[in-house]
Amino acid sequence: MMSEGTVRPGGRTARVREAVLRAAGDLLAERGFAGLDLAEVAQRAEVGKTTVYRRWGSATGLVADLLVEMADSSVSRTETGSLLGDLRTNAHLVRRTLVDERQGALFKAVIAAATCDARTAAALHAFYATRVGEWAPCVTAAIERGEAPVGTDPHEVIRAVSAPLYYRLLASGDPLDEASAERAAAAAEAATRAGAFVR
Amino acid sequence: MMSEGTVRPGGRTARVREAVLRAAGDLLAERGFAGLDLAEVAQRAEVGKTTVYRRWGSATGLVADLLVEMADSSVSRTETGSLLGDLRTNAHLVRRTLVDERQGALFKAVIAAATCDARTAAALHAFYATRVGEWAPCVTAAIERGEAPVGTDPHEVIRAVSAPLYYRLLASGDPLDEASAERAAAAAEAATRAGAFVR
Repeated sequence: MMSEGTVRPGGRTARVREAVLRAAGDLLAERGFAGLDLAEVAQRAEVGKTTVYRRWGSATGLVADLLVEMADSSVSRTETGSLLGDLRTNAHLVRRTLVDERQGALFKAVIAAATCDARTAAALHAFYATRVGEWAPCVTAAIERGEAPVGTDPHEVIRAVSAPLYYRLLASGDPLDEASAERAAAAAEAATRAGAFVR
Repeated sequence: MMSEGTVRPGGRTARVREAVLRAAGDLLAERGFAGLDLAEVAQRAEVGKTTVYRRWGSATGLVADLLVEMADSSVSRTETGSLLGDLRTNAHLVRRTLVDERQGALFKAVIAAATCDARTAAALHAFYATRVGEWAPCVTAAIERGEAPVGTDPHEVIRAVSAPLYYRLLASGDPLDEASAERAAAAAEAATRAGAFVR
């Protein structure tokens, strides 16, 4: 047994949050936003109902905190040494997330909720701002290496990699196969080189 | 008064459908898919409730038929004589649709419904297949003019124009300004020229 002293301050609070957000994510993936019942989240997380209501207040509050946690814990960018290599890594990461059964359902549920709830939309936008910001330095480095024109907007390049994959998931329904990720990266890289993302 | 002979066969049926789909679209835009009540659609359309239930069956059935009507009645492609010109026209058309108060809300509602209903998803995918198919000949013509490499997938090019605009609408929340449409067209054209959409 760990002695009291080895438990970090906030350790219990952090464990409660982890359990609650895990249960909330599971429920969202299984049943969508409409099925995100706080009492059931508390039960699955083995946490008191009062704690959940007091700390998160509503399903919307839970989703907002879940998005903060997802942004904090998602995979860091990798550096392959070339713009195309970095964008390919990013494209395959996004694709894997969207085709993952739990994660894909979770994203669909949150995006659907955001279409009719302003607070969820704000949390979703903040999530993408964080994710895009995490990968944007790949483009800055490419500009420094002379692989992309000076004045290229790094955020636009990263968004351009994700966009065709989300379009398939949410709109056209075309398969999210490996080739779609390769094409998303190749198209964004070619457009970048041609100066399409110069501000 | 028109004589009986001047009324086209199916004229009344067509008018009922038009009124019902107009009312359904209004309700979807105002309240989302969850607010699409068939009795209220009938009332707004000034059509008998029984007619609506018998002909469309459910909210899902209404949305599916609305998408068929939207695909049939949406703007035809224009031919400007250059690939970039055609893709710009397409990008601005998609942007105007998504920023239009009623149309934008309608698309969000239908896309949200499609995330949790397979039949609505199938209708949505068919809608985009029709729209993308309508514009794909612009790319075929560009290949013939030598503006795009032989083997370019026309559908992928058209999807690439829409994708960044839908990504802004549904995911990142970045502004859908005129510049975003210009950039979507320019990026798709540059990627096409570079061969990123060659099968």
